[in-house]
Amino acid sequence: VSAAAVDSSGRIKKKVVSPTDPEAGTASVIASVEKLLASGCDVTAIGVGVAAFVDLDGKVVFSPNLSYGEPDVGRAVGAKFGLPVAVDNDANLAALAEFRFGVGRQASPMLMLTLGTGVGGALLIDGEVYRGANGLAGEFGHMVVSTNGPACACGKKGCLEALSSGTAIARMGAEAMSRYPDGLIGRLSGGDPSKVSGELVADAAASGDDSARQVIADAGRWLGLGLAGLVDALDPALIVIGGGVVSDGDMSQLLLEPARSAMQDGLVGRSGPEVIRARLGNDAGMIGAAAMAADLKRA
Amino acid sequence: VSAAAVDSSGRIKKKVVSPTDPEAGTASVIASVEKLLASGCDVTAIGVGVAAFVDLDGKVVFSPNLSYGEPDVGRAVGAKFGLPVAVDNDANLAALAEFRFGVGRQASPMLMLTLGTGVGGALLIDGEVYRGANGLAGEFGHMVVSTNGPACACGKKGCLEALSSGTAIARMGAEAMSRYPDGLIGRLSGGDPSKVSGELVADAAASGDDSARQVIADAGRWLGLGLAGLVDALDPALIVIGGGVVSDGDMSQLLLEPARSAMQDGLVGRSGPEVIRARLGNDAGMIGAAAMAADLKRA
Repeated sequence: VSAAAVDSSGRIKKKVVSPTDPEAGTASVIASVEKLLASGCDVTAIGVGVAAFVDLDGKVVFSPNLSYGEPDVGRAVGAKFGLPVAVDNDANLAALAEFRFGVGRQASPMLMLTLGTGVGGALLIDGEVYRGANGLAGEFGHMVVSTNGPACACGKKGCLEALSSGTAIARMGAEAMSRYPDGLIGRLSGGDPSKVSGELVADAAASGDDSARQVIADAGRWLGLGLAGLVDALDPALIVIGGGVVSDGDMSQLLLEPARSAMQDGLVGRSGPEVIRARLGNDAGMIGAAAMAADLKRA
Repeated sequence: VSAAAVDSSGRIKKKVVSPTDPEAGTASVIASVEKLLASGCDVTAIGVGVAAFVDLDGKVVFSPNLSYGEPDVGRAVGAKFGLPVAVDNDANLAALAEFRFGVGRQASPMLMLTLGTGVGGALLIDGEVYRGANGLAGEFGHMVVSTNGPACACGKKGCLEALSSGTAIARMGAEAMSRYPDGLIGRLSGGDPSKVSGELVADAAASGDDSARQVIADAGRWLGLGLAGLVDALDPALIVIGGGVVSDGDMSQLLLEPARSAMQDGLVGRSGPEVIRARLGNDAGMIGAAAMAADLKRA
């Protein structure tokens, strides 16, 4: 759990990082804020980003990986600190941060996908998060692009998340290792498929390993195919790609170049928008949470 | 080309239908309006629905099947009749009509897909067409759901349009005929695959032919898979399905029931919205065009 004091320009003034307790999401959030306040920060509103579906009232309605206890995380945090609290899905918050303080350039509509363990996403229209009827919009990771594709954690096959997330890169890296056991992925992991992470594949690719580079390019092509569908559906002015998978600037081009080509190949009668890498990295969620909390205070 | 005089309640007062000249789209539109005016209708604004991409200024920017000559169809029609003219994509207009006068019930966001020769679509937010950055949003038919699927007219494989349009049903019907040459599809078409249309498959299904019913159910399941992705992405309050494929109420359930099941099976941690059949049929585009033209007059 990361917590930060953020000023009105989106700059982080102070940051604390604590271990995540999957069983006590809300308690972890409260403990992190306490730690931050103990350091002497002057805080006027609190924004909380959660790895969960959040409804239109800011309540957690479905959280696949963490338990937040009561769904109204905002009320629990607000009761503790006596401050206004905004709660949203971390992908929505990262997109808001990029729009206001990152690479978003006020583009509208702006589509953002975050590639990490999973694939998160958000659509901003005139800088506002498009929420849909229940607050659950923007889950682009579970759109199926290949019905015969690999199994996804959600139970379907061939979801974008199963083809272009960090988890997918790890799986494809392990598959590549089984084909080329003497390659760099094999040497770095000691031949143990469970040790092949997205980061390890990226390290191997950075060292010039062809099969690792191929894996990342494949993930990029799948991403591009998904993006083509999203461009047909949503016609965004700009696409921003964030998340751990593109945390390294040089390496991100290994993914983004094939993604751009595959996206354009998938479009008929139109050019796709620019596809650019997010700028705010892991801090995007916190900066977006702060921005949303500040809006709340003003409202 | 159909033209109609429509009142402010969305009721058609007078309608004329003329043959389409694919080489002279705009001239066909003008001729139809002239015919309508000659019948004595009092018209105060004109709405034109086109089977084409329309940009934010109402200009035709890409038209795969018809030629409209100059892109500014609205200016050409307006110059001829001296009336305000609204121009939009027919799927957007059909959705607007259903929202205002059909089954839309003011649902927001409302997602509509029209299944005919192709698959058109539109997203309405608070009753307004979501247009995207260039006016080209809502092309849900070319989202790829099955990379190893059948070839689509667009050049890709496995687009939703290649799996659940009327054209797709015809193709799957011809394939079913080749497996069961003695079935009803074969008898109705005289065994000629080029005579197997979507309507013919629907007729065979209506007569109880199992392989025809199977084809329509398969198209419905593909549709449902695509809808699941769109629900994840857009979280609509209501999904409306229109177009020739669902023109018959009883038969439409053969498609929509499997679509609803497949959609729900494809969703994790949420329930999908209602999926209902459009009410205004082939007239939806004209009624929506009239509504948009009336808005123009008021503005």
